Amino acid sequence: MTASFSIDEDLAFAGKLADAAWSAIRPHFRALTAIDNKASPQSDFDPVTVADRAAEDAMRTLIASERPGYGITGEEFPAKSSENGLTWLLDPIDGTRAFVAGLPSWTTLIALCDAEGTPLIGIIDQPVLGERYMGWPGGAAMQKDGQTTMLNVSDCKDLRQAVISTTDPFILNPAEQGAWTHLRATARLTRYGLDAYAYARLAAGTIDLVAESCLKAWDVAALIPVVRGAGGLATDWRGNTPKLGGQIVCCASEEILDQALLALRRSADTL
Amino acid sequence: MTASFSIDEDLAFAGKLADAAWSAIRPHFRALTAIDNKASPQSDFDPVTVADRAAEDAMRTLIASERPGYGITGEEFPAKSSENGLTWLLDPIDGTRAFVAGLPSWTTLIALCDAEGTPLIGIIDQPVLGERYMGWPGGAAMQKDGQTTMLNVSDCKDLRQAVISTTDPFILNPAEQGAWTHLRATARLTRYGLDAYAYARLAAGTIDLVAESCLKAWDVAALIPVVRGAGGLATDWRGNTPKLGGQIVCCASEEILDQALLALRRSADTL
Repeated sequence: MTASFSIDEDLAFAGKLADAAWSAIRPHFRALTAIDNKASPQSDFDPVTVADRAAEDAMRTLIASERPGYGITGEEFPAKSSENGLTWLLDPIDGTRAFVAGLPSWTTLIALCDAEGTPLIGIIDQPVLGERYMGWPGGAAMQKDGQTTMLNVSDCKDLRQAVISTTDPFILNPAEQGAWTHLRATARLTRYGLDAYAYARLAAGTIDLVAESCLKAWDVAALIPVVRGAGGLATDWRGNTPKLGGQIVCCASEEILDQALLALRRSADTL
Repeated sequence: MTASFSIDEDLAFAGKLADAAWSAIRPHFRALTAIDNKASPQSDFDPVTVADRAAEDAMRTLIASERPGYGITGEEFPAKSSENGLTWLLDPIDGTRAFVAGLPSWTTLIALCDAEGTPLIGIIDQPVLGERYMGWPGGAAMQKDGQTTMLNVSDCKDLRQAVISTTDPFILNPAEQGAWTHLRATARLTRYGLDAYAYARLAAGTIDLVAESCLKAWDVAALIPVVRGAGGLATDWRGNTPKLGGQIVCCASEEILDQALLALRRSADTL
């Protein structure tokens, strides 16, 4: 089988996946009765909900029926290998902590990657807010209230004026914490706990830089097309092409990236 | 003039104030062009937007025309003293940092206080989400999508199982940071940056404890009727009746409060 990638068709299908995920998630949001813990009792709390699994199952079922030759890599179930070189990356609920706390900043992440693992299209979906952020080669848009708006990153070029974000200052290792403290002390304003929603707002121009570590492939793949499609930059903490996981920094301009890398490079993972 | 307090009428009027605030705020959300800085250049960034002032102005105009004898204390303009013992406390945009970052976790806070400064009713309004949390003596409810749902705090009685929140771990003084680190290490899950929205979700049962310091009267007054109306507790960091400002802790049960005060008391402000 040969890969056939069509931006319009695949974005529309990714939208169907996001709708299916929300149908599975909706009954459980703000109505949790039991929370699984996939981490060992000794490790930090890592909530996985019934909703998370139901949503990934719903998306996998849809892919199996409408896109049978495609691979699937998701957070909750074992990977399915691709027969055509294209693979869907799924994170049904990115931001499970926000979900457990009843906050509408969790998102459903969907990406389509080629055989080299390069994300072609990505969706960051927040259905409680009714906001769907979509990215593709050369563009990005938000659907909300039946309207589609093109996305553009901000024109911020100075880290001292920047709104920056990371998910949790306390999961960074000591070297990373040093780098983050430098960024926080320099930037205008800092926000925490947003997970992938921070990248959505970067693409929409209200956040100027997001830096995180310890990411998984399904955390990262959907973000890159959205950020780049909106004119933003995505690299690892050395300024190189980001891997699907680990440390990532996204920002609105080359100037902010250069300023941030002064701090981030000192705590970048070894290659 | 004598104070005449009617829960239904005053809650309905407070709802009109929230609507007026949102009409003034809506054109500015995610469309900021200029951000004032009311703090001195040397101090930390404290954004006040055009929206903030326009919304308080709209609410003050409505109070002047429909509730002329009432006092007004708001964040943006000088206080107006009360002729009847009752005073409206207004915070048009609580969570200006979230607002600047384009995040829908800022809220409009409205409270009616008696001559002793005791809050009688309170509203926490988040219009982007369409969520209005209302509290009064003996009850609390959320209006969303045309439906009104009674609010109840969670049944969590163990801090180790609790979802906890504070707005910014970096604005706490060193003693407070020690206390907060103790709570964070004990609790199941921690969220940051929510400002008054954390108290709304406490009332709605998805967050179990919120502790903050450095609050102002207009930050606090609206929260107390909502939290107490939903069956929650609100005290200062010694377990006493909270003042309108300073350190406050709200939680879902007496048990969690007792556990939290073990840490918080050590860094409580002197009386």
